[in-house]
Amino acid sequence: MKTVVSKETSRKTSVAAFSVHRRVPVRNEFLAGMDSDFLYHLGFSSSQDLKSMFGDVKFFCCGGSAQRMGEFAQKVANEIGPRGEGELPFGLKPCKIGKTDRYSIFKVGPVLISNHGMGMPSMSILLHEVTKALHYADAKDVTYFRLGSSGGVGVSPGTVLLTTEGMNGLVEPHYSLPILGKMVHRPAILDVSLAESIVTAAKKRLQDVKVEMGKTMGADCFYEGQGRLDGALCAYNEDDKMQFLRLLNKRGIRNIEMEATMFAAFTHELNIRAAVACVTLLNRLEGDQVLATPEELEEWDERPGDVVLAYIKEELGL
Amino acid sequence: MKTVVSKETSRKTSVAAFSVHRRVPVRNEFLAGMDSDFLYHLGFSSSQDLKSMFGDVKFFCCGGSAQRMGEFAQKVANEIGPRGEGELPFGLKPCKIGKTDRYSIFKVGPVLISNHGMGMPSMSILLHEVTKALHYADAKDVTYFRLGSSGGVGVSPGTVLLTTEGMNGLVEPHYSLPILGKMVHRPAILDVSLAESIVTAAKKRLQDVKVEMGKTMGADCFYEGQGRLDGALCAYNEDDKMQFLRLLNKRGIRNIEMEATMFAAFTHELNIRAAVACVTLLNRLEGDQVLATPEELEEWDERPGDVVLAYIKEELGL
Repeated sequence: MKTVVSKETSRKTSVAAFSVHRRVPVRNEFLAGMDSDFLYHLGFSSSQDLKSMFGDVKFFCCGGSAQRMGEFAQKVANEIGPRGEGELPFGLKPCKIGKTDRYSIFKVGPVLISNHGMGMPSMSILLHEVTKALHYADAKDVTYFRLGSSGGVGVSPGTVLLTTEGMNGLVEPHYSLPILGKMVHRPAILDVSLAESIVTAAKKRLQDVKVEMGKTMGADCFYEGQGRLDGALCAYNEDDKMQFLRLLNKRGIRNIEMEATMFAAFTHELNIRAAVACVTLLNRLEGDQVLATPEELEEWDERPGDVVLAYIKEELGL
Repeated sequence: MKTVVSKETSRKTSVAAFSVHRRVPVRNEFLAGMDSDFLYHLGFSSSQDLKSMFGDVKFFCCGGSAQRMGEFAQKVANEIGPRGEGELPFGLKPCKIGKTDRYSIFKVGPVLISNHGMGMPSMSILLHEVTKALHYADAKDVTYFRLGSSGGVGVSPGTVLLTTEGMNGLVEPHYSLPILGKMVHRPAILDVSLAESIVTAAKKRLQDVKVEMGKTMGADCFYEGQGRLDGALCAYNEDDKMQFLRLLNKRGIRNIEMEATMFAAFTHELNIRAAVACVTLLNRLEGDQVLATPEELEEWDERPGDVVLAYIKEELGL
């Protein structure tokens, strides 16, 4: 399989080109002293041979739903495979050595794929445990991606937004977490040059998909936290909502979802290259109802994955 | 099936006894004006016949993992069934009219069961949508329960804690959520008399399970947010951690998990009777490692469900 081997060589060159090889980092002096670290929510531990399982990972892609990420894994396998002899087969599910009731993890060659559930706390558990797993596996030069859906703020439905910076629910550019009873604020910064490279790859390979860049608000609630009028609780009106959405738009926020801010803060804190690509299912400035057909929605749901995969293929020289 | 019929009669009497019939409430004047409300994450809408699906629900039980809640649904079916003719069959999965990639919902007679994922934002989406579904279904006198696992703070591992009050990560007795860019604080109060009734039922029916009451801290993070030393990030040491855990203990907090505070605030806001029952998998004052065997953990994981089921059976006169 000559072609596959040459693709593989080209990938290695390409990855080497953008940085000195750098192990996935952690910042916790206590980890080195642990005999074994059980990654509770993934269901496997550092005593297992993580190096042979995850040592060659270069791209980590996560998104909300297990089903959608399973479909994405299939697409990655179709587009970057077949792999050469001796490579890990498509769809190796590490769940076989762990559990799937919290997260479902797939691996396709250099691409690790997982769902992250909904909201920043669920995202946070995944990021801590996957990052430790990749660190123990001695994986190098790994880029993280979140693929998601969102409500647009002044962009046309179906657009894929690449986040330049995360904002919290108070419209501040950081992620806030109480640690030992004190609020800690961490800047929610993403690598804008990576976002630009993804936009470039998408424009080159996917003519039909509109791709833009902008700030993203990560909310802790789908209803009141995003100014929706259709929750079980709602103490404001249409005018209050529109005033808020217009303020967000003025501050450069182009979409609202529930994970970007934490994801940006965590990866920035560890200096991990990371990007957030979310499709917008509606334009909140024009209403709260999703007016797209089920067929459109299904196609749009695939767009963040398509956009990121365009970049990955570019990096792999495929 | 004479016995079943008499049990059924006794249930109705018992439920009637504790309150004037009260429809599951919402507080949002806009809902009444909507033609149809699509409960996006559950996958069904108010235009469907929710009354025949959910009108007889009296108990709503939720917990983190879909798998565990599926097992709980089976146990509920074993213990409160068989049902009389004309009743909904066991295990009617409303997912058949919706989707399961976000939440898996089961119904067993008067008991509605769902997973809620991990963290308060994920819990929040479920509570908004299930509460609207039960409201549209005209369900009356419904009590909500969260069944979970947690880290104990000064209680022996395996104990089931009934929460008296939720605390946030800043050790304050409320849930804080940015709404339209401003922080809103809601008291995280639970019905202590309900917690007491659950403890009484558990002590009567489950001699081997230790059940206690105390405050619960709901954190937005499993690692740094709970003072753990084994996250990918950790900027404090063992002494800092112990000082924090001892402070929590002094303030009456007996366990830490990731949902109770939002659950308490939401149900209190709508005046829905609610309880949180969590098993403690370890005593954080004695270390961060779970030392229980897999067999013990498996048995402990069932305890919150057993405790709540003891109460439900008491209420149903079974």
